[in-house]
Amino acid sequence: MKKKTKTTKKTTLTVSEQSLAKHKKAGGKIGTALKVRLETKKDWGTYYTPGVGAVSSYLGKHPKEARLYTMKKNTVAVISDGSAVLGLGNIGPYGALPVMEGKAAIFKSVANVDAVPLVLDTHDPDEIIETVVRIAPAFGGINLEDIASPHCFYIEDELKKRLSIPVMHDDQHGTAIVVLAGLINALSVVKKKKEHVSVVILGAGAAGSATAHLLAKHGFLDIRVVDRNGVIHDTEKEMQAHKKHLALLPTKRAHVRTLDEAFKNADVFIGVSGPNLVTEAMVRSMAPEAIVFALSNPIPEIMPDVAKKAGAVVVATGRSDFPNQVNNALVFPGVFRGALDRGVSAITDDMKLQAAYALARLIKNPTPTNIIPSVLDPRVVKVVAKSIRISKK
Amino acid sequence: MKKKTKTTKKTTLTVSEQSLAKHKKAGGKIGTALKVRLETKKDWGTYYTPGVGAVSSYLGKHPKEARLYTMKKNTVAVISDGSAVLGLGNIGPYGALPVMEGKAAIFKSVANVDAVPLVLDTHDPDEIIETVVRIAPAFGGINLEDIASPHCFYIEDELKKRLSIPVMHDDQHGTAIVVLAGLINALSVVKKKKEHVSVVILGAGAAGSATAHLLAKHGFLDIRVVDRNGVIHDTEKEMQAHKKHLALLPTKRAHVRTLDEAFKNADVFIGVSGPNLVTEAMVRSMAPEAIVFALSNPIPEIMPDVAKKAGAVVVATGRSDFPNQVNNALVFPGVFRGALDRGVSAITDDMKLQAAYALARLIKNPTPTNIIPSVLDPRVVKVVAKSIRISKK
Repeated sequence: MKKKTKTTKKTTLTVSEQSLAKHKKAGGKIGTALKVRLETKKDWGTYYTPGVGAVSSYLGKHPKEARLYTMKKNTVAVISDGSAVLGLGNIGPYGALPVMEGKAAIFKSVANVDAVPLVLDTHDPDEIIETVVRIAPAFGGINLEDIASPHCFYIEDELKKRLSIPVMHDDQHGTAIVVLAGLINALSVVKKKKEHVSVVILGAGAAGSATAHLLAKHGFLDIRVVDRNGVIHDTEKEMQAHKKHLALLPTKRAHVRTLDEAFKNADVFIGVSGPNLVTEAMVRSMAPEAIVFALSNPIPEIMPDVAKKAGAVVVATGRSDFPNQVNNALVFPGVFRGALDRGVSAITDDMKLQAAYALARLIKNPTPTNIIPSVLDPRVVKVVAKSIRISKK
Repeated sequence: MKKKTKTTKKTTLTVSEQSLAKHKKAGGKIGTALKVRLETKKDWGTYYTPGVGAVSSYLGKHPKEARLYTMKKNTVAVISDGSAVLGLGNIGPYGALPVMEGKAAIFKSVANVDAVPLVLDTHDPDEIIETVVRIAPAFGGINLEDIASPHCFYIEDELKKRLSIPVMHDDQHGTAIVVLAGLINALSVVKKKKEHVSVVILGAGAAGSATAHLLAKHGFLDIRVVDRNGVIHDTEKEMQAHKKHLALLPTKRAHVRTLDEAFKNADVFIGVSGPNLVTEAMVRSMAPEAIVFALSNPIPEIMPDVAKKAGAVVVATGRSDFPNQVNNALVFPGVFRGALDRGVSAITDDMKLQAAYALARLIKNPTPTNIIPSVLDPRVVKVVAKSIRISKK
């Protein structure tokens, strides 16, 4: 009788309940592991006192060589203040920790990068910057994550100035790279050229801003970014620096003001905003053979079947249960793998473009339901990592 | 010909050269490891989006339960600013990193504690405190290490007040615990009682101060601490708070002022100071059946053979190449293993005493050359961990 009740209960667990139960059972997703043996007194004497004294003494005099002798060689810090976690908003450091651990687990699993989750008990941007600068010596790279806009821009900019290791806010650049990769293949499916298409981006936060800028770098000539107040177009009116920049993006539609107007005859829609913000009518008003990336997670801006019904030819989401999963897990492991291997001090725009091109090239013959590789494709990390190099030109 | 040269070279490598070469080959001593499988799309959906959202959402509302669902359950931060690394002094965060990695490796190897080395790019005590408070959420404990006196006292005190996870400066309390353990057995070898012996401690820094206080807690009634200016005795003259406390320790020798005077008829000498500071004549002036702990590393205050020649019956050092290695690696892994397992919020004096007693008890029949267990004895972690519990009395 007892057994039967248990079985019934098990089959009715939701994904959320299962995930909670599995996390509790595992007691965390990431731990440490030794890279050396510590079995004999001799081992202890080599890797701890007295032997370690020689290494410490040497690195005290030659701090730049820490990369060769310590964990710094292969370790990245994954840092969040929990101010913008997934679609859950500001749920603080403890709320952020399971996501950062998940990222650390992915880093190890697909790219053999040792990533340490650090969740910060402060939302003050200057305190975040100070803290990251102070803990930086042990790390070969800094992956910022789930830090709310607009603070995320200031924090990343300052850290890039103050540190000589690569710093990347993944919500910005990871998203931008994977969107560009998917878009390159989507355009080849519908046989349109970047110079001729008009792009609407809904969402002017971390992901939307970085995506808009990388598309412009790649050569798109008509980009409009829309937030809750409509199309961002007036540099005078916008208070935030990153939105002033968005108002200056190249466009052939300077007169457009509303989301409805922006959709009209657009070739590409990229949603990095929130659930259900896009209607069937909006998609119907797009140009023929429209491309719709509805990336809000877990609930997209418009469900794929609705977008298809409204005429979209290529539809992508951030979810694993629909075709074309445009997810930055395709990007961050390879970016830091490459950065650590080559000791690069910054992730440049050129590297981001090369990473997007490399990802796109993995799909030899793009189709409406196959524009981007799977996160489980072992080639992904390799080709992205290879793109993280100083260009010879 | 080439081969021969290589062999010759190899045999002439010093311990320091070997250690440097081995550290470089390993490229760091510690990395990360997955506690869960990330092999299928289902795994990703459980431990990353979307499943992880339920855990994040739950911990956002119930932050105290982070211990049950995340790395916090089994992870300790090993934190140093590199201001007092081994006997090497202030060699900064990069100099400190190999030692902190070594500790993290020991934590994992003997106690299965996941320890993350964090070396700080600041020596300002308030900045250190702020930084540790901000990074604390992911950790179940804080092991402070190699932070110079007197800042180490203020930093530990403040962190204890501000955090609800255990904070321990190992140079202080790890040393105090292992010294007391060794001393209990040394006294049983020479058949003397704590109430009747006079103790001289040379060194009034982190280790000396904490050792003096723990010996007083245990019931020693005659303790004198000596620094470079002589015996610490005048609360008015001492500028530093921790030295004022040392002047107030119980003693029957209030008149004693110099190191030479302190040695005369002393039963126990504990050196936590520097190389070669103690002479044969000093040891010769001690009471019969003297105990000498010359713990300065790697060069003791007096070499064991010299101390023995001068009449000492029990001699201990911090080194693995002499008998009686009194080393805090016997303590810190078990302390944090116990603290994590029982979720204790602080390491109390009672726990420290119990840990010392438990360590001492592992040696059933102490002899002059066997007063303390080996760091490789698997019982050590278990008995120390068991002591870290709230006392029932």
